[in-house]
Amino acid sequence: MTITDTVINQNKADAHRCDLLIHNVSLATMDYETSDSASPYGQLEDGVLAVTAGRISWVGAAAEAPEFDAIEQIDGQQGWLTPALIDCHTHLIYGGSRAREFEMRLQGYSYQEISQQGGGIVSTVRATRAASEQELFASGLKRLQRLMAEGVTTVEIKSGYGLDWPTEQRMLKVAGQLAEHTGIEIKRTFLAAHAVPPEYKDRADDYLDLVINEMLPQVAEHNLADAVDVFCEGIGFSHAQTERLFKAAQQYGLPVKGHMEQLSDLKGSRLAAEFNALSVDHLEYLAEEDLPALKAANTVAVLLPGAFYCLKETKLPPVQALFEHQIPVAVSTDLNPGTSPIASLLLAMNQSCLLFGLTPEQALAGVTCHAAQALGLQDRKGQLQVGYQADLVLWSIDHPSELSYAINMHQPQQIWVNGQPRLNPSVSNTTGA
Amino acid sequence: MTITDTVINQNKADAHRCDLLIHNVSLATMDYETSDSASPYGQLEDGVLAVTAGRISWVGAAAEAPEFDAIEQIDGQQGWLTPALIDCHTHLIYGGSRAREFEMRLQGYSYQEISQQGGGIVSTVRATRAASEQELFASGLKRLQRLMAEGVTTVEIKSGYGLDWPTEQRMLKVAGQLAEHTGIEIKRTFLAAHAVPPEYKDRADDYLDLVINEMLPQVAEHNLADAVDVFCEGIGFSHAQTERLFKAAQQYGLPVKGHMEQLSDLKGSRLAAEFNALSVDHLEYLAEEDLPALKAANTVAVLLPGAFYCLKETKLPPVQALFEHQIPVAVSTDLNPGTSPIASLLLAMNQSCLLFGLTPEQALAGVTCHAAQALGLQDRKGQLQVGYQADLVLWSIDHPSELSYAINMHQPQQIWVNGQPRLNPSVSNTTGA
Ligand SMILES: [Zn+2]
Ligand SMILES: [Zn+2]
Repeated sequence: MTITDTVINQNKADAHRCDLLIHNVSLATMDYETSDSASPYGQLEDGVLAVTAGRISWVGAAAEAPEFDAIEQIDGQQGWLTPALIDCHTHLIYGGSRAREFEMRLQGYSYQEISQQGGGIVSTVRATRAASEQELFASGLKRLQRLMAEGVTTVEIKSGYGLDWPTEQRMLKVAGQLAEHTGIEIKRTFLAAHAVPPEYKDRADDYLDLVINEMLPQVAEHNLADAVDVFCEGIGFSHAQTERLFKAAQQYGLPVKGHMEQLSDLKGSRLAAEFNALSVDHLEYLAEEDLPALKAANTVAVLLPGAFYCLKETKLPPVQALFEHQIPVAVSTDLNPGTSPIASLLLAMNQSCLLFGLTPEQALAGVTCHAAQALGLQDRKGQLQVGYQADLVLWSIDHPSELSYAINMHQPQQIWVNGQPRLNPSVSNTTGA
Repeated sequence: MTITDTVINQNKADAHRCDLLIHNVSLATMDYETSDSASPYGQLEDGVLAVTAGRISWVGAAAEAPEFDAIEQIDGQQGWLTPALIDCHTHLIYGGSRAREFEMRLQGYSYQEISQQGGGIVSTVRATRAASEQELFASGLKRLQRLMAEGVTTVEIKSGYGLDWPTEQRMLKVAGQLAEHTGIEIKRTFLAAHAVPPEYKDRADDYLDLVINEMLPQVAEHNLADAVDVFCEGIGFSHAQTERLFKAAQQYGLPVKGHMEQLSDLKGSRLAAEFNALSVDHLEYLAEEDLPALKAANTVAVLLPGAFYCLKETKLPPVQALFEHQIPVAVSTDLNPGTSPIASLLLAMNQSCLLFGLTPEQALAGVTCHAAQALGLQDRKGQLQVGYQADLVLWSIDHPSELSYAINMHQPQQIWVNGQPRLNPSVSNTTGA
């Protein structure tokens, strides 16, 4: 598979034509669940991957590769090629910052004192309502680019810091603008049921009426979101309120997902399973008895170790039981200003290993194939399979376990979105010159 | 302080001449311990800083600033200027990787099984001995550049993965090459007493003879290191052995420091204080009764929360007592392949807050003024003071607490080393284009 070979191949009528051929590389296909071999990471040492019209057109071992007639060839220099990363749970559009609140907490102020100073989610709602579309776009873009620099090319972004229609709509609109500006795929989730806004204090059901009767129809009519989400919790919305919301979403044909069992066991996950939810997220207080329902519904369990870390939580989600029940487990940043101000999916992978006991292979599956499934994209993203979108990352590493092990050490050598290369600014390093 | 003003000033004979003037910026001088006001971060909102011949020549409030005749002016756009960051405890030169060992641990293999597969520090020693100077330089540079991209311009690097003279010497030589190549200041620490090498198994004293009688004289003669370090621990070197090493270092006029009280209380810190150690590092098992001795010796306590995190340690260092005794507390990455593969000093700041309870101000002091002191550089680094080296970072943040609060979100807008700007490649962002 040398360049000379390819030049020769170009004269052969039977050579497989492709736009891009990546060779001299190991592949972590993350296709191990469907492949007949049980090789870790679905790995192929000395592999070859071909791209045609933005899709993977051939993938396999170099020894079994046909002759290619490639417009461009990339020598992977014995690095590793993985599916591009997918961050399936973020709140990266918001106004303001909660750094001062973080500081007050560490200075020993009580939650009440912080609340009196305007802390908590209410402060983010206030700042987001006050922020212009341009301001939300600029600050959201900065955060999104930090994720992208690590090889993330698909991101879910939730609304939920407006809690009124103008702001919720603005957040969803900005999410669309970020997709257009960056060229990556962004899945938008409608999360007006994130908290009860101050003006509806003690009237959660009235606020939910507004969400269901005023906001949701607009979301559906104008295709502003791909899914509907809720914070099902004592300090959020009850089981009954969540059910009302899910029923309404179902009527509009919108898939559902939920922030479930983060602080207590409200049986939100079991409810979500009844609605064939795409995912249930957090899950620290999820009971093992509810796992068969999730498995039957093919719902993804999304672990958010960053929030666990930032909240100094000690209750662990039932990780081993999730794997024993063969429930697909995703890992995400939960990037948000209050409980997980973390713009690094690679760090979330490390945290999922160190805090939750995932293996590096489970962590990589959690940000590729299983994250894809949490967004309903499992048929075209998150694996190196023929027919899948050519969203790829080339890493200069000896083994994929490096990605979960080392923190802030590895950056992509190259990123492709739909087969198109993305310059990664952090790699062209001039600092050390 | 507009450009027009300055043009006028250039015609005035009494204008203060400087090479660089940074204005429209808040200053975190980190000079709060000596200043008469007790303002947090030694902060000056709307400050001005002037640089002449690589040193800070004026610093203060804009309202009190004289007229300047500056060759270059920088508008800080209401961001924050801090001293450049200092990572005062790293082992960033090494061969190999311990990612597979990390993976085996998470797969449930026992330490014995991992050890049989060649894991542990011995595997790093083997890989480092086998690595060429060029290989150590290339991999060390990559790690160093990751630190530098976050605004670190002074780094301590230890030897200690050779445990024989050719390799220890090679590590120290490569550290010098990294300083020359990058133009940043690197302090070198001789840590041959990091572990007993396999060929001296059960003969720690014989190995220490080699370190003291063969290696140390060469280190001193050829100025290969700025300090001598030791791992004083049951699995490292005893209290008596540490004392022997410190006495020898003292004879050569080399300052000492130590990995102390990480896994048990061997009274290494108290011993270090007797030798006026620059710093004692780790300190999870440090007893409060030993704090007055540290205070009297002006020894810095270096916290390494990354190792605490990676080892899933639960014993906390006596953090509040350190502050009560007014001992300077530094924070560092401990960047190393075994117990802290973390190339982010900003993450170490966050970990010091979330895991150890430092305030963001204490964390920033820990990577500026106190880190400088741990390296004996407190008279010229780590603060924005007249006469200090102009190692500076400009951040686009609203408040310095942002640096400890947000993970992987903020990158320097600009970095200066001795008053010279360093292009930060991660800021000129083309990913999102
Ligand atoms: Zn969330
Ligand atoms: Zn160390």
